[in-house]
Amino acid sequence: MAFDSALARETASPTASLDRLVAATAQDMDAVNRLILSRSDSPVEMVPEVASHLIDAGGKRLRPMLTLAAAKGFDASGENHIRFAAAVEFMHNATLLHDDVVDESDMRRGRPAARTIWGNQASVLVGDFLLGQAFLMMVESRDLDALGVLSRAAAVIAEGEVFQLAKARDLDATEEDYTRIIHAKTATLFEAATEVGAIAGGASAAERKALADYGRALGMAFQLVDDVLDYGGVNGALGKNTGDDLREGKMTLPVILALGGATAEERDTLAAALGNRDADRAVLDAVLAIFTRHDTLARTMAEAERHAQAARDALDTLPPSPIRDILYAVPEFCVSRAY
Amino acid sequence: MAFDSALARETASPTASLDRLVAATAQDMDAVNRLILSRSDSPVEMVPEVASHLIDAGGKRLRPMLTLAAAKGFDASGENHIRFAAAVEFMHNATLLHDDVVDESDMRRGRPAARTIWGNQASVLVGDFLLGQAFLMMVESRDLDALGVLSRAAAVIAEGEVFQLAKARDLDATEEDYTRIIHAKTATLFEAATEVGAIAGGASAAERKALADYGRALGMAFQLVDDVLDYGGVNGALGKNTGDDLREGKMTLPVILALGGATAEERDTLAAALGNRDADRAVLDAVLAIFTRHDTLARTMAEAERHAQAARDALDTLPPSPIRDILYAVPEFCVSRAY
Repeated sequence: MAFDSALARETASPTASLDRLVAATAQDMDAVNRLILSRSDSPVEMVPEVASHLIDAGGKRLRPMLTLAAAKGFDASGENHIRFAAAVEFMHNATLLHDDVVDESDMRRGRPAARTIWGNQASVLVGDFLLGQAFLMMVESRDLDALGVLSRAAAVIAEGEVFQLAKARDLDATEEDYTRIIHAKTATLFEAATEVGAIAGGASAAERKALADYGRALGMAFQLVDDVLDYGGVNGALGKNTGDDLREGKMTLPVILALGGATAEERDTLAAALGNRDADRAVLDAVLAIFTRHDTLARTMAEAERHAQAARDALDTLPPSPIRDILYAVPEFCVSRAY
Repeated sequence: MAFDSALARETASPTASLDRLVAATAQDMDAVNRLILSRSDSPVEMVPEVASHLIDAGGKRLRPMLTLAAAKGFDASGENHIRFAAAVEFMHNATLLHDDVVDESDMRRGRPAARTIWGNQASVLVGDFLLGQAFLMMVESRDLDALGVLSRAAAVIAEGEVFQLAKARDLDATEEDYTRIIHAKTATLFEAATEVGAIAGGASAAERKALADYGRALGMAFQLVDDVLDYGGVNGALGKNTGDDLREGKMTLPVILALGGATAEERDTLAAALGNRDADRAVLDAVLAIFTRHDTLARTMAEAERHAQAARDALDTLPPSPIRDILYAVPEFCVSRAY
């Protein structure tokens, strides 16, 4: 399997694998984007201001595309796949607005975070508004199955974020804690995205499970890669947000793996750096040197590759189809971001 | 109508009017409280810690009692009225947790606010968790009608809070702005509480509308009274949280009415006091003196009485019943808190 993905990396550019997903969902995404625009509007001007500041900044809209693609694999007539995709993106954006407050972040998607312009208050409340609108769109679908998936996801995501908060700067945090956190805070929404897509498409129970498994594994890979990217990726390409997780004291896998084999001195260095809001380049370099000695970024990527493969394996239970091929390429896109 | 409520005030203590509601819903409230307890639990310890800190502090649980009473007026078999009541209380508590962050409050229900113990982060995230759990309970009811009412309420409440934020310290805020804010942030949940109760009870469309109208008017009266209480009530009994709205720059009706007739000097005094986090007793006394000159607390109470009467009027369209009598007394309880 390592061979397969290494091969894929050589033969296709990472964006090429996403381009096919973008192309396959482009028409439906137009409808989703229109729905997002109309449902983030409000006579209270600050609502669309804050919402569009975040939404216009783009992001890949990977989650709603996954919903649309999952639905497209079956028979997605009607409007529900559009509603579900927009609801998934609203839930994601609500989470981002609240995360920025929780993490005290200054930047988001390369722009100042909403909270630095409109304050924490507006970020909390507009997040709540988007969450309410997400549920309203789901209610309009009149699909209780999908409503159950997304409302459960909302509770699990919040629970995972609280667990992450409780574990911040905890040097005894385990790989199991980390897995539980990223499963809840990230993989759950990817899983919900593909599962509600399958529901909208009228998938069988087995097909629905396959797509849910795919989404969950993809989400795990996505977050593992994100956590490597926060340290500059495997090749240590330091950007302006590099080290944010370190400054926030987040116990991500690179840190946990390093602590597992650290000398007493390395442990002290990591302990002092974690949660140090003023950690500068020198502090970050010291941490990266420890990571290099314990090979933790590559080991985290190996874990990401394992989940990427699990995502592909889940698709293997579905009959061959063009949309299955397109979904098959997405894990590789996720993983390749870190190289 | 003024006579009626004045009479009621003389002949019954305010808590007596609530006692009947408490007694009529006591058995169902036991089930609601059990559901609240089980649904605010989580293996992530910080979740039940934060949730129970707020929930145990009590509060009157007026909203879920209204849901139960509304359902009881009809034929509430099954478990849905219990689920709806718990969901309404969870939505209310989620709002309180987020409000504390937005208002930077230190106290809530006579105890330190959750955010002062566990931080803003935990308050935001546990609020999100409770909101997710509220929707999950609604989904379990499989009642799309009620789901629509509560998801719409969630979006409207957040929108109203954003509008309130946008209008903070705005000396040009109008009575209409104020009405719109309290309608959204408070009356909407009271309306949803009685409306989903009516739905659970299998009320007719006309009965459902009557109870929704009742809840909305009651919520308006409730918030108007709250805004008078924040300045110590009509008799100016200053407590330790008196003046919080002033310090937060909230444009409540007493302030708006005072500004409407203020001299230039009074206007300057109000402008300087609004949003002054350090406003002390002297500042508050100066503001209260302006209120007294313009009779704004009594005028705000007259508006509260008007909504209390509208709530009773809405009930008059329902056939007589013991539960109607009980609901009839609740507006008087709300209003009498300020005397």
